[in-house]
Amino acid sequence: MAFTYTRTVRFKDTDAAGVVYFANVLAMCHEACEESLASSGINLKVFFSNSSVTIPIVHASVDFLRPMFCGDQLLISLITKQRSDNEFEIGYQILEAAADKVVAKAITRHVCIEPASRTRKELPSEIVQWLKSWSA
Amino acid sequence: MAFTYTRTVRFKDTDAAGVVYFANVLAMCHEACEESLASSGINLKVFFSNSSVTIPIVHASVDFLRPMFCGDQLLISLITKQRSDNEFEIGYQILEAAADKVVAKAITRHVCIEPASRTRKELPSEIVQWLKSWSA
Amino acid sequence: MAFTYTRTVRFKDTDAAGVVYFANVLAMCHEACEESLASSGINLKVFFSNSSVTIPIVHASVDFLRPMFCGDQLLISLITKQRSDNEFEIGYQILEAAADKVVAKAITRHVCIEPASRTRKELPSEIVQWLKSWSA
Amino acid sequence: MAFTYTRTVRFKDTDAAGVVYFANVLAMCHEACEESLASSGINLKVFFSNSSVTIPIVHASVDFLRPMFCGDQLLISLITKQRSDNEFEIGYQILEAAADKVVAKAITRHVCIEPASRTRKELPSEIVQWLKSWSA
Repeated sequence: MAFTYTRTVRFKDTDAAGVVYFANVLAMCHEACEESLASSGINLKVFFSNSSVTIPIVHASVDFLRPMFCGDQLLISLITKQRSDNEFEIGYQILEAAADKVVAKAITRHVCIEPASRTRKELPSEIVQWLKSWSA
Repeated sequence: MAFTYTRTVRFKDTDAAGVVYFANVLAMCHEACEESLASSGINLKVFFSNSSVTIPIVHASVDFLRPMFCGDQLLISLITKQRSDNEFEIGYQILEAAADKVVAKAITRHVCIEPASRTRKELPSEIVQWLKSWSA
Repeated sequence: MAFTYTRTVRFKDTDAAGVVYFANVLAMCHEACEESLASSGINLKVFFSNSSVTIPIVHASVDFLRPMFCGDQLLISLITKQRSDNEFEIGYQILEAAADKVVAKAITRHVCIEPASRTRKELPSEIVQWLKSWSA
Repeated sequence: MAFTYTRTVRFKDTDAAGVVYFANVLAMCHEACEESLASSGINLKVFFSNSSVTIPIVHASVDFLRPMFCGDQLLISLITKQRSDNEFEIGYQILEAAADKVVAKAITRHVCIEPASRTRKELPSEIVQWLKSWSA
């Protein structure tokens, strides 16, 4: 089941071409990820300051289908996919609500590591639980 | 009467000190302004692409009282104040909801101009109406 | 021949994990692109306000190999590749200078369109010239 | 003596009004501050990860005199002023090089604290030294 996050395009998201700056689309996808973590009861303040484990993004890709404008209402839905005991992927689809059109699609891939050594480490159980909640 | 906008602190808002990057606090205040404009029926896409008038910010100031962390729920309230027929000011207060503490206060001052000549121009009536809605 | 752009990692680029926020890496790549355009004599102010043609990014992808920290000196090199008369691709490699290690690789794909109709249009000759300067 | 930092306006700095987004002007000023610290031999990676002391910004203000456009070359000069053994202020002036016009002026005020207790603490000697280098 997909998790859906509603996001209004802000002036700050746009650039001088009058539309959302391309890299900000990935930032909006990450917001959706954060919101889905919070909705699964994961405390982001604690999670991001946890010193025993970190889950950096190792890959991201995004396709831009239509421009997004300031004030647009976006529905960002995500689906998770665990790839191994230390790696997962998130697929995102961004829909512009008024036109009911898909405006972008993205993927982020995440790996769990031990921060000091930067060696791979098993995903924490709360993350595995969260991955199950939002898988296809 | 103040307009209030609810905002979750996102990972992107933070910096390597672990808290919200100072300039992003002003960007959050501007989001509150945009949301209040939208709530008054002002179409932001049309408004920001209007070529006959533009309302740049000429001054901003902000006081930081407490750090803000990823995941924090903020209540950003704003009060408007018309200063002349071509100028207004917005006062912002940011409250961290869980602790019920004020974390920042800010002011932005805006002037209405004709874009090409950059000379002052009367505020559009819809903006004057919006200013009345959210004044003290 | 690759174009190379030198960039210091700024505090604003980082997030609460203490390293560069993932989406900001693509923004740095775009800076390198802008700098290479300027070095080919293309006036960015004029270029980005040109109303007869626009060249949006239709795809971007990035691989993160190592974390980047505030103060790091990065060498961002790019190579262009024209794919048709209305489309091109840019490949980026980011090297952290002190360690002489590649920290990220990215690709952006761009399509030339007529803004109002959003139909494909031939790339302007100055862009074709620029593409030739920095191709493999 | 003022420290001067040269900065090209990037596409990412702009918004749909076609000019630099207001809050990004303060971020550019902070870049100038970082560059001046680095030029005084202060290692930013070490400095910002120092856990015994942190120097948050407690106040910022900025006046916008003229719009800034993508591609503009800016000269950001700063002057420091120590206000007490735990507090200092930085004044910034941003000049658009081609037109030789001041486009913005800003101030940031910084306080040195112990991170855990958030109580005031004496500025580190390397910071006091840096403040002396760039004072009026």
